[in-house]
Amino acid sequence: MSDTPLHIIKIGGQVIDDPETCSAFLEALVALPGHKILVHGGGKMASRLTQQLHIQSQMHQGRRITDTPTLQVVTMVYAGWINKNLVAQLHALGCPAIGLSGADANALQTQKRPPTPIDFGWVGDPIPEGVNTDWITDLLIQQKMLPVFCAITHDGQGQLLNTNADTIAATLATALAQRFAVRLTFCFEKSGVLLDPEDDNSCLPRLTQARYRELIAEGRIAGGMIPKLDNAFATRAAGVAAVRICSATDLQNPNAGTAINP
Amino acid sequence: MSDTPLHIIKIGGQVIDDPETCSAFLEALVALPGHKILVHGGGKMASRLTQQLHIQSQMHQGRRITDTPTLQVVTMVYAGWINKNLVAQLHALGCPAIGLSGADANALQTQKRPPTPIDFGWVGDPIPEGVNTDWITDLLIQQKMLPVFCAITHDGQGQLLNTNADTIAATLATALAQRFAVRLTFCFEKSGVLLDPEDDNSCLPRLTQARYRELIAEGRIAGGMIPKLDNAFATRAAGVAAVRICSATDLQNPNAGTAINP
Repeated sequence: MSDTPLHIIKIGGQVIDDPETCSAFLEALVALPGHKILVHGGGKMASRLTQQLHIQSQMHQGRRITDTPTLQVVTMVYAGWINKNLVAQLHALGCPAIGLSGADANALQTQKRPPTPIDFGWVGDPIPEGVNTDWITDLLIQQKMLPVFCAITHDGQGQLLNTNADTIAATLATALAQRFAVRLTFCFEKSGVLLDPEDDNSCLPRLTQARYRELIAEGRIAGGMIPKLDNAFATRAAGVAAVRICSATDLQNPNAGTAINP
Repeated sequence: MSDTPLHIIKIGGQVIDDPETCSAFLEALVALPGHKILVHGGGKMASRLTQQLHIQSQMHQGRRITDTPTLQVVTMVYAGWINKNLVAQLHALGCPAIGLSGADANALQTQKRPPTPIDFGWVGDPIPEGVNTDWITDLLIQQKMLPVFCAITHDGQGQLLNTNADTIAATLATALAQRFAVRLTFCFEKSGVLLDPEDDNSCLPRLTQARYRELIAEGRIAGGMIPKLDNAFATRAAGVAAVRICSATDLQNPNAGTAINP
């Protein structure tokens, strides 16, 4: 177990899409002490490109089905443009970074989601032992690098797979919790878990599993927050030292946002 | 100096565009003994995507000018789709590979080409000490990985740059020649340097600098072969142990194609 904490930070599309927010976020990230891993989602570029190329994305209950043309687009945008720009910007800030898909160095292997009951196409779900923890640990400790993961993985048999970025962050955090005191932070556009989605001042400073169940029952937490919070609670249960949901602008404030099962 | 040879192999778009040729090439690559680095160009996907997105590429004397929309396309296609697919396929063949742009781990830093006399836009040219030889050597020897370089580099100040894949291969070969007996192979669609471009049987088994000058003077070598061969002769002069130009289908035959200044 390393004495230095490992921050695993996931940023979503809204951070990436705004150059000023992104640049300020990267500066805060570089200033953070300890080992760090950045995991990024996609942003609007993939949707825009899909439209421009007249790709008719199939959706199921608000979730996109990854057919072959969609896989091409997300791989190009996530692993190509966004990932390499983040890495180049980190180097410009004096931070040695390396951009990774799950295929690179077999860093994160997943399996294609079973086609029943819904065939989501080229989507990858985590598997046990899918994280190359030895190699990532060496990158962090020996090579003092900041790995930047995009939301593309592979199945080990030559197939690239689209994988939810929150899931990637949670999977890395859980696997690396055996080696590091992992502090997992999901950064997004809100100030944290809000009691009133319209009021950024209604942020809960902490959230326990019991209170979370009550809030779901009361209908005060709903929609996309549920899979995000399920992921967050699961990583806490799996031994991740600290999990937080906060705004990308609050990265440097350890008390900002919502602490999960503190 | 390592006792094991280092093969640096550049493949062009025609290999990448044909799945069967590409797959056979990758199998031959994996079977090759020694350390290996793969450098790949782009293929038709970038041109097709540029057309589909109605990007009006400016050309100068047959060379594309890399404006911002073009840089986006080549970064997406080269660093995203092509690079990650090659890496996933290599892992499927049991070969631990890692995909790299020049920005990743600062593996290859270049400088933007000066805007005079012609402004080629976001194009990177090699600089002295631009290759992170320590890190690449560690990848090859300690980590036993096969680095797969795409034709995207960075300037160290946050800017990605489009860089000719032949130039990347030559730059890596020259820098690593201090540590390894480097064998540089440019694979393309012809069987080697042809005396008659229409006749694949007219391949020269070897070519000296003196004979090269004669053939240029006679007009028997022209066009795109000249920068390719200039690159090849320059790397030989800079200490690269062996340089060869051959068909991608002949990778495993050490006598195939044209040996440069043997």
